[in-house]
Amino acid sequence: MTFKSKKTLPQIRLSRMAILLFYVCASSLGVQAQEIISPNKNLSLKFELKENGIPTYQLTYKKKPVIKSSSLGLELKDMPSFMDGFTITKTDQSSVDETWDPVLGEEKTIRNQYNELVVTLSQKKYNNRYIRIRFRLFNDGLGFRYEFPKQNDLNYFVIKEERTEFQLAGNHKIFWIPGDYDTNEYAYTTSKISEIPALIKKATAEINSQWPIKELSVQTPSMMKSDNGLYINIHEAALINYPAMSLEVDASTYKMRSHLTPDAVGNKGYMQTDAQTPWRTIVVSDKATDILASKLILNLNEPTNYKDVSWIKPVKFIGIWWEYFVAGKSTWAFGKETNVKLTDDFSKLTPNGKHGATTERAKNYIDFASKNGFDAILIEGWNIGWEDWINNWKEDVFDYVTAYPDFDVKAVHEYASSKGVKIMMHHETSGSATNYERRLDRAFQFMNENGYDAVKTGYVGKIIPRGEHHDGQWMVNHYINVAKRAADYKIMVDSHEAVRPTGLNRTFPNWIAQESARGGEFESMGGLAPDHTTILPFTRLMGGPMDFTPGIFQTDLSYYGTGSTQRVNTTLVKQLAYYITMYSPLQMAADIPGNYERFPDAFQFIKDVALDWDHSYILEAEPGDYITIARKAKGKNEWFVGGITDENSRIANITFDYLPAGKKFIATIYADAKDANWKEKPQKYTISKVIVTSKTVLKQYLAQGGGVAISIKEGSVVEMMGLKKL
Amino acid sequence: MTFKSKKTLPQIRLSRMAILLFYVCASSLGVQAQEIISPNKNLSLKFELKENGIPTYQLTYKKKPVIKSSSLGLELKDMPSFMDGFTITKTDQSSVDETWDPVLGEEKTIRNQYNELVVTLSQKKYNNRYIRIRFRLFNDGLGFRYEFPKQNDLNYFVIKEERTEFQLAGNHKIFWIPGDYDTNEYAYTTSKISEIPALIKKATAEINSQWPIKELSVQTPSMMKSDNGLYINIHEAALINYPAMSLEVDASTYKMRSHLTPDAVGNKGYMQTDAQTPWRTIVVSDKATDILASKLILNLNEPTNYKDVSWIKPVKFIGIWWEYFVAGKSTWAFGKETNVKLTDDFSKLTPNGKHGATTERAKNYIDFASKNGFDAILIEGWNIGWEDWINNWKEDVFDYVTAYPDFDVKAVHEYASSKGVKIMMHHETSGSATNYERRLDRAFQFMNENGYDAVKTGYVGKIIPRGEHHDGQWMVNHYINVAKRAADYKIMVDSHEAVRPTGLNRTFPNWIAQESARGGEFESMGGLAPDHTTILPFTRLMGGPMDFTPGIFQTDLSYYGTGSTQRVNTTLVKQLAYYITMYSPLQMAADIPGNYERFPDAFQFIKDVALDWDHSYILEAEPGDYITIARKAKGKNEWFVGGITDENSRIANITFDYLPAGKKFIATIYADAKDANWKEKPQKYTISKVIVTSKTVLKQYLAQGGGVAISIKEGSVVEMMGLKKL
Repeated sequence: MTFKSKKTLPQIRLSRMAILLFYVCASSLGVQAQEIISPNKNLSLKFELKENGIPTYQLTYKKKPVIKSSSLGLELKDMPSFMDGFTITKTDQSSVDETWDPVLGEEKTIRNQYNELVVTLSQKKYNNRYIRIRFRLFNDGLGFRYEFPKQNDLNYFVIKEERTEFQLAGNHKIFWIPGDYDTNEYAYTTSKISEIPALIKKATAEINSQWPIKELSVQTPSMMKSDNGLYINIHEAALINYPAMSLEVDASTYKMRSHLTPDAVGNKGYMQTDAQTPWRTIVVSDKATDILASKLILNLNEPTNYKDVSWIKPVKFIGIWWEYFVAGKSTWAFGKETNVKLTDDFSKLTPNGKHGATTERAKNYIDFASKNGFDAILIEGWNIGWEDWINNWKEDVFDYVTAYPDFDVKAVHEYASSKGVKIMMHHETSGSATNYERRLDRAFQFMNENGYDAVKTGYVGKIIPRGEHHDGQWMVNHYINVAKRAADYKIMVDSHEAVRPTGLNRTFPNWIAQESARGGEFESMGGLAPDHTTILPFTRLMGGPMDFTPGIFQTDLSYYGTGSTQRVNTTLVKQLAYYITMYSPLQMAADIPGNYERFPDAFQFIKDVALDWDHSYILEAEPGDYITIARKAKGKNEWFVGGITDENSRIANITFDYLPAGKKFIATIYADAKDANWKEKPQKYTISKVIVTSKTVLKQYLAQGGGVAISIKEGSVVEMMGLKKL
Repeated sequence: MTFKSKKTLPQIRLSRMAILLFYVCASSLGVQAQEIISPNKNLSLKFELKENGIPTYQLTYKKKPVIKSSSLGLELKDMPSFMDGFTITKTDQSSVDETWDPVLGEEKTIRNQYNELVVTLSQKKYNNRYIRIRFRLFNDGLGFRYEFPKQNDLNYFVIKEERTEFQLAGNHKIFWIPGDYDTNEYAYTTSKISEIPALIKKATAEINSQWPIKELSVQTPSMMKSDNGLYINIHEAALINYPAMSLEVDASTYKMRSHLTPDAVGNKGYMQTDAQTPWRTIVVSDKATDILASKLILNLNEPTNYKDVSWIKPVKFIGIWWEYFVAGKSTWAFGKETNVKLTDDFSKLTPNGKHGATTERAKNYIDFASKNGFDAILIEGWNIGWEDWINNWKEDVFDYVTAYPDFDVKAVHEYASSKGVKIMMHHETSGSATNYERRLDRAFQFMNENGYDAVKTGYVGKIIPRGEHHDGQWMVNHYINVAKRAADYKIMVDSHEAVRPTGLNRTFPNWIAQESARGGEFESMGGLAPDHTTILPFTRLMGGPMDFTPGIFQTDLSYYGTGSTQRVNTTLVKQLAYYITMYSPLQMAADIPGNYERFPDAFQFIKDVALDWDHSYILEAEPGDYITIARKAKGKNEWFVGGITDENSRIANITFDYLPAGKKFIATIYADAKDANWKEKPQKYTISKVIVTSKTVLKQYLAQGGGVAISIKEGSVVEMMGLKKL
């Protein structure tokens, strides 16, 4: 018997450990197949060696096939592959049931329960070179990865391609964006798998610095729904020192296959034993809400080894930001010139008169943030280099320590400090990661010296090192390097345009949020489809928190009088609901302060809403259609509910059974007005205060492109006087 | 009239300025050709626009053609080229005659005298887009470069290839190594230009991480001798933000053409106006000694802008180094393992028992250095990672701050400090420049904290960023970044395996020396040809000081009793002569201390020899055959002479007319014994003390593969008693 030892860091509490371990020396027994079931017995995973020693696996959920027999393996460069010729030389099974507490999260405590199968596969013809495949079967899905133990005949190797197959059981409905090595900021297409070829061209609309994959492919997290009612989500967990995976699609057989992001010379991954791939994850259920509730991906990531995490805190912030997107109200750049060098004297540029990040304006924002209880303000465009930062594949684009002549870092820092507000640093790299890395220590030191404790990073543009991709192994390591280095300086990181997350916020909890999808900013650039945010939680957010930048109250951008006819495709209330439906411990109130001052009663929700949670309750959800979530604020008897719908109006069924029984609470309901919708009267809403209990059930109308937001708290008898019970 | 303004930094003293400026608005005059002559009138440069507006130039020396009409231009990526369609829209001529003092050098004061022609070339069909070509004609050669001024129609651009031609006038003798993007550590081949195709394969012998250029090509500095007695050297100066140039060779027409080092995606250079190429240099004379005396390349580099250079000093050092090359006496690595990670606990490795850089051995070296007046000792192999540092294209190969368990940085620092000796840092990168850059600040901070003031860097192996080359624009910028960052920490840099130098030690005087050629270490790996070091000063050293690592006394490596039959292909005395013939302000006494203790009288020359000079006198020289040089120590009445020969014995003609007239000096002459040569009795030598005056002429015998070294100083009457006059 083998006792499976787990790391016993403080944050892990082994609550139960059902040990049902057995060891089979399979080769001696002639067994070439293995099966395990999930703790709740809903899922079954079968591993089998097929003809020629080809490893395969299949996954079923309540006896319905999820993944039909699919082969596993990797091709190597200048070495024999890990594709076939295997025999099983050892198998191990074990079970784990433990809990752990994330630093920040949707749940105070997360349960990690799975049954594990580890298969050791040897290649006799290559001197018994061997790998392991580790399967972890949870109640809500499967994770598996390849492992390459240290051994005489395997030291350094280069991956030419990973050949993991996902043979789906039918022509599922799929919510997809096209495979791309450099960007995930695409709009979603909803179709049958078989329809992807006909739709791929349209789906691959032009985005800055995209690099679509030649083979027909989609990105992960890939969300699907089968005709027989299964929700299936394929992604990966713990993407470290490995390129991101896309899925090549065979639209006629419904087979998907791993496609890794190449490096500058076409290789996929540089490996040194001991090594392992990220986990390939398949979350599956017959309830869509289970997909959103899944913690499988987080559970497959390693616990953090940070000793002190007390400095990692939720961040609610405003920013000198949205004004750059709406109608050219102001600009990141200070000068009119379009050719500058860091060695230039920027005080000699011709001011364009519209520079956003001035000392004076920063102080106004600080006043607003302080008055309304925000933790921080983001100031973009404070540093020299914005005149020609984009599209030039320029290496020395920013230096991260030199402010424009009209922005006084010390003065702003002192003023913010006196008002109890933090300034959030902004490090746009323009994709020039090498330039960022060589300046990183000085940049972080500068932040420490000037009171910044969080940085928003950006990677707009083609990557330098030239030929590398946003989603390749080198950049994957870069983002992690930045997060780790930031931790040395006690700095939190919110990365934009980075590879999509894979639960690494467990391991690097100061990597507090990411963009890595088509976010709120696109409402100013063509707009987001009304169903976009009903899909994102099933796709992008499966990997981790998103800095979506919600809270746009002024949804009609023609308001600014610059001739723009652009509009945000939501009601105002839907923007409030996002603070609940789009989980992140870092949340922006993205609109311009003046717009919040016009709607102070609705703004109250943003001021009140929590960012860190004891519990989350996925009340109802259907990808592409609607989501309703309730959450309990961490350490407080406060609850918040958010519900959104797509282009269709609907009645949300909101329950309150998560409230302590037998008590009354005051609920403030922010609802779309009856005649509101995302196109007309989007700013019409009602706010009502009512009494709710755990037994309350609310049928709430959501307008087309609308939503609902509710804050719930305890109230004194006096406060409750005159309030109706719902 | 235009007065040509020059930077007036303290180190430049305008001693004379003969202004013979005139301005010609060529296009209005219809003039499409321009000619200038050198100040001494020996050289003539003619610029001419040929049919279709193709720019050309030609160079003559004493009416002999050096470069016959050759075209100039560049091809751009995704933009019209700068190859043709030009008209001359402006020409400027000016003259400069000034002097400046290098921080360290062969001369205390350097004269910079040239006549300049600047041609502005416009392309009407591209909206009058224009470039400039700047020619500087010195008494000893030509420098020219392309300049790209800031203008409306030229901002960012990418160079596909530079098309600078050098149409030689005949089938010259050439001393060459094959073109290669990654290494210059080749042995030289001496042949006619026409013979290169037949010899290229043999010349491209296997070297670690080489990347030979597909097209027939040679590297620069390219040294040639014409049948009519001209010595011609083609190289470049001030290689900044641009890839290094090789020369494609047309062996039948004797035309050479620029070939730039590509980046990972095949582009050659990323440019932003204002921009310029490095200078293309042609040093020419009918005397070989003029080539060695030329300061043309240094003069074409920019003065340094370092405010304080007081911390930049010559370094004479020994090192725990040669023992790694001779017969496996000791090793860089501590452990037996061949698969390690920086995250490993290196104290848990299995010691191989032969680790060179231990605290105890360092102290022994410190004792020797202190006793013999060395400034520093280099300790290689002090830091973790050497077990698998090579050939794995591994990124996180070294961390630069963690010592092996048997090397105590603090203790060694304190001991060295107490003995008045510095420890020279060693930063091998294994070609992983990204890893080095991201750790650079911490590495230099570590050096500051532990008393290191100089670092030997190394770039063995394939470059990371993968796909980049040692000689590409990205790495060219990397080396400079390292030098500049080092200057911030007052650290001197001695780079190995970097791009060959182009006089940048003027601009970055803390970049004190480089290897960048087949150096002394190859005496342990096949040996250097006896003529190798008679060629290097005409090639590699044209660009700057070389850390050649001379001073090997134990030339027969079978001495170590490990079965090696390898030998150093010189006499012992030739190794002494290198301290003069191979200029560098940083010089190693490369042999193991025990070998110096066996030859204390010869070792005295190494202890005495200066590293920085008031004046240098090239007494005689012929590339591939012999070199004799005398130098006066900076600020001292001490002179040192070094003479070397190739595989043939010879009589060196050594004059002393640089000594102050009418005074007697004591010369100590280190000479090969009559029966010595590089193969037999290489350690036999004679040392004699004699009186010399400025009128003395010495006919000195040099053995096959031998040399001569002389130290000259003032002496008291007592000291001179009993000494013979030569």
